[in-house]
Amino acid sequence: MRGFYIGRFQPYHNGHHRMVQEIASEVDELVLGIGSAGDSHTPRNPFTAGERIMMVTKAVSDLDVTTYAVPIEDLDRNSVWVSHVQSMSPAFDVAYSNNPLVIQLFTEAGVEVRQSPMFNREVLEGTEVRARMVEDRDWESLVPDEVAEVVYEIGGIERIQNITASDGSGDVAENHPDTA
Amino acid sequence: MRGFYIGRFQPYHNGHHRMVQEIASEVDELVLGIGSAGDSHTPRNPFTAGERIMMVTKAVSDLDVTTYAVPIEDLDRNSVWVSHVQSMSPAFDVAYSNNPLVIQLFTEAGVEVRQSPMFNREVLEGTEVRARMVEDRDWESLVPDEVAEVVYEIGGIERIQNITASDGSGDVAENHPDTA
Amino acid sequence: MRGFYIGRFQPYHNGHHRMVQEIASEVDELVLGIGSAGDSHTPRNPFTAGERIMMVTKAVSDLDVTTYAVPIEDLDRNSVWVSHVQSMSPAFDVAYSNNPLVIQLFTEAGVEVRQSPMFNREVLEGTEVRARMVEDRDWESLVPDEVAEVVYEIGGIERIQNITASDGSGDVAENHPDTA
Amino acid sequence: MRGFYIGRFQPYHNGHHRMVQEIASEVDELVLGIGSAGDSHTPRNPFTAGERIMMVTKAVSDLDVTTYAVPIEDLDRNSVWVSHVQSMSPAFDVAYSNNPLVIQLFTEAGVEVRQSPMFNREVLEGTEVRARMVEDRDWESLVPDEVAEVVYEIGGIERIQNITASDGSGDVAENHPDTA
Amino acid sequence: MRGFYIGRFQPYHNGHHRMVQEIASEVDELVLGIGSAGDSHTPRNPFTAGERIMMVTKAVSDLDVTTYAVPIEDLDRNSVWVSHVQSMSPAFDVAYSNNPLVIQLFTEAGVEVRQSPMFNREVLEGTEVRARMVEDRDWESLVPDEVAEVVYEIGGIERIQNITASDGSGDVAENHPDTA
Amino acid sequence: MRGFYIGRFQPYHNGHHRMVQEIASEVDELVLGIGSAGDSHTPRNPFTAGERIMMVTKAVSDLDVTTYAVPIEDLDRNSVWVSHVQSMSPAFDVAYSNNPLVIQLFTEAGVEVRQSPMFNREVLEGTEVRARMVEDRDWESLVPDEVAEVVYEIGGIERIQNITASDGSGDVAENHPDTA
Repeated sequence: MRGFYIGRFQPYHNGHHRMVQEIASEVDELVLGIGSAGDSHTPRNPFTAGERIMMVTKAVSDLDVTTYAVPIEDLDRNSVWVSHVQSMSPAFDVAYSNNPLVIQLFTEAGVEVRQSPMFNREVLEGTEVRARMVEDRDWESLVPDEVAEVVYEIGGIERIQNITASDGSGDVAENHPDTA
Repeated sequence: MRGFYIGRFQPYHNGHHRMVQEIASEVDELVLGIGSAGDSHTPRNPFTAGERIMMVTKAVSDLDVTTYAVPIEDLDRNSVWVSHVQSMSPAFDVAYSNNPLVIQLFTEAGVEVRQSPMFNREVLEGTEVRARMVEDRDWESLVPDEVAEVVYEIGGIERIQNITASDGSGDVAENHPDTA
Repeated sequence: MRGFYIGRFQPYHNGHHRMVQEIASEVDELVLGIGSAGDSHTPRNPFTAGERIMMVTKAVSDLDVTTYAVPIEDLDRNSVWVSHVQSMSPAFDVAYSNNPLVIQLFTEAGVEVRQSPMFNREVLEGTEVRARMVEDRDWESLVPDEVAEVVYEIGGIERIQNITASDGSGDVAENHPDTA
Repeated sequence: MRGFYIGRFQPYHNGHHRMVQEIASEVDELVLGIGSAGDSHTPRNPFTAGERIMMVTKAVSDLDVTTYAVPIEDLDRNSVWVSHVQSMSPAFDVAYSNNPLVIQLFTEAGVEVRQSPMFNREVLEGTEVRARMVEDRDWESLVPDEVAEVVYEIGGIERIQNITASDGSGDVAENHPDTA
Repeated sequence: MRGFYIGRFQPYHNGHHRMVQEIASEVDELVLGIGSAGDSHTPRNPFTAGERIMMVTKAVSDLDVTTYAVPIEDLDRNSVWVSHVQSMSPAFDVAYSNNPLVIQLFTEAGVEVRQSPMFNREVLEGTEVRARMVEDRDWESLVPDEVAEVVYEIGGIERIQNITASDGSGDVAENHPDTA
Repeated sequence: MRGFYIGRFQPYHNGHHRMVQEIASEVDELVLGIGSAGDSHTPRNPFTAGERIMMVTKAVSDLDVTTYAVPIEDLDRNSVWVSHVQSMSPAFDVAYSNNPLVIQLFTEAGVEVRQSPMFNREVLEGTEVRARMVEDRDWESLVPDEVAEVVYEIGGIERIQNITASDGSGDVAENHPDTA
């Protein structure tokens, strides 16, 4: 049986990893959908799809199940989102999510969805990890070692700090390249 | 004379219907533009274009004028919006709107616009109808019978309640499929 | 039961109309999907979606079944095409088509498809109608009267002749606005 | 040496002009990138790209350096933004910006960026100019004379006032053409 | 009076230049629309919009009329093309074109179009210039000196020769980056 | 050192596999870019990105180097293609390609490209594999065993045969869903 689990993985952290380990015990193969793949260089989405593929692939390499890390670009059309995901991913039998919209869309399309209380923690942890990166507090303990290595390799801390910086006008910069 | 009246119709309700009846007394044919046609499955835009076409077509079927229900996808370019509407719609002589931007765009393009105090009520009613759907309070009395039937046929109440649900993390879910 | 029948309807002609009459005897409601809705002003796609909605709506107005004329913009992603159609159209139980790709896509999505030998004739007739329009030969006898009226109302013959014209360089003009 | 300076120029005002004069003393040729080129008819982005090209071109016509006014449409993909700018602009050696995201993106792409304390003033001035236009207070003294002429020629004051108007429902209108 | 003249300018050559000189005698200001602005690196469209802006701006710098070089990205929607052009360009009173589709679109939108027998020659010359570039035959005599300089500055001859090269499989390479 | 190798992999065949084995001897990690990721269900691009990810991942699972299978959607903008690829892929040091456009684009962007005579063979083999699939001749011997299994699992042979079928009008069907 093949399972599908989607996240933005900005970055992939221990909350995701615990969830993946849980799912791995229920499936033979696991697809990790990397959502909002086209977004990067914003405080909420600092890392590119390619950087997140590296994080995820390295962090799950020692799991026993076959895993696929698949970037999913946003289409901004909820009504075709399930088809879009299905076309970009190896076929899957069950989707894992606690997001009400994701659950509703998969359910309307006839795809089985499984929920877990563990999901909520992840959302909180993603925000916490990024906040610590900006403030130079310990974030490494919240992510797998392989992820920390990727973040250092790509200069990720400098990037997230720079794009979250004040521009001197008293406001945090809007993260759009032509707001000058 | 052919008139054009645009709304998101999420859903088509009695405020819209009174307005349509008023316009119908001034024109021979009426085009009902279904705005933001690509949006669906959000608390503010719960229904697909196809579902809204059904609502509108059934609700206006007993009017004496010929009507067209035409979905209009967003282009996100105000400067070409009038041309886009004109290409998707049977040619029209007059547009009905109270929205300042719509009025400005049609006016710059040389299209006659007619306003009515009735328009404002509709905007308020759309929000009210959706709030009642979420809270399981009487919404049926605010919409034509044909619309209520369509909403039930498509499982609309369950959908809007699910996508407006809290995800357990203390926040109402962002309505984007990859926020997990 | 609701049926779905898609065509480009450039223009809607007698071959389409015979097909629609045939389908109308099998269904309660019929959705007419107007394909490539964003295309216009080319020799192969001379008419806008709005013009084609007018042709179709007027030509089928005396049928006994409820009909919907629904423009479908191209998404250029075969894998999400069925979802796109389903989101823009009232829900349907069966699709009518002889196009191998349309059949394959609906079949993979679990939608029943019905074929008919009458379909092939239509494709040929569309090309014939446009050729006669360009060459000023009798095309009116190949389309319903209501369609001929719309074509005249919008200046359709002059348009298709102009855009098919030679540009004097020895070649028929490429139909792209910036080839000068 | 060729320099690149990007702004939304809604409208081009004295703060921009002082900056351009400063940059002009450091370069041989100057490219003025007109950001968010596809946006117009909103309170924050009232003018079209074509109108802004006119403002900028006329205002800088007496500078000694060769200038280019180049509209840059948004791509909504930060990771390809530098390539997009480079493909739409004459090749440049140095970019001028105080925006942290712009600085980060150019720096990651290996483009030299120069900053100046003057930039911050501009951002504030753009907001101030538009507010005065809406409230019919003196805005002309904040922009070059050529810009004021363009604003009057295109009916810009009437436009920004109309699209910022209340729609009577108690709220300022959302600037989206189909909110009726 | 302001005139508008559109071309792909791949590259800007003597045929364009004679045409521009002719138009310049009829107008006060001239907008040069650079069509298919997003295309580059193909045998038919070798140069980026930025490179073409440079060619055009330098080649017309000694004309007496004010000129604007404005890139126009393709929208692939003929029905909104005129609005798109109008939003990206300073307002113009007359358009110059011999292209039947351009003429039809501007005419339907109520814009005056002027034709000239000189246009046809340009189309032929563009093809000829590119063929000579590929074959290393004299192309410099067909373009203004300023254009030849830009082509050399950007390594344009090497580029057009490389992308037109055989890939060794017996076919000229399809110009799409992922055909390997 | 990390290498990048792009192909459409429609399907992944022995020619690709020999190439991958060759590259694997030169690099520590290998990114396999799956081009035209959004295309599927056409005679030339029968398989979805998800199906191709499965083929590639299974076929290279016994190589000694770490591999990434990354779908790359077309952007239709050659000038930003390298940035797009770089944002979707783990960072790479060298690209492998014989395609002249790919070579030119990477070279202009300063990325090292390596060529090999083996590439040409692949292009020919892809066409051959698809032709045999359509004609029910032995294609299994041209692809790795894992790929044949995926093709059978997804009903790939039936699909490619159906979408390549004649539609009875004497022509092979155009592969566009709305040509009826």
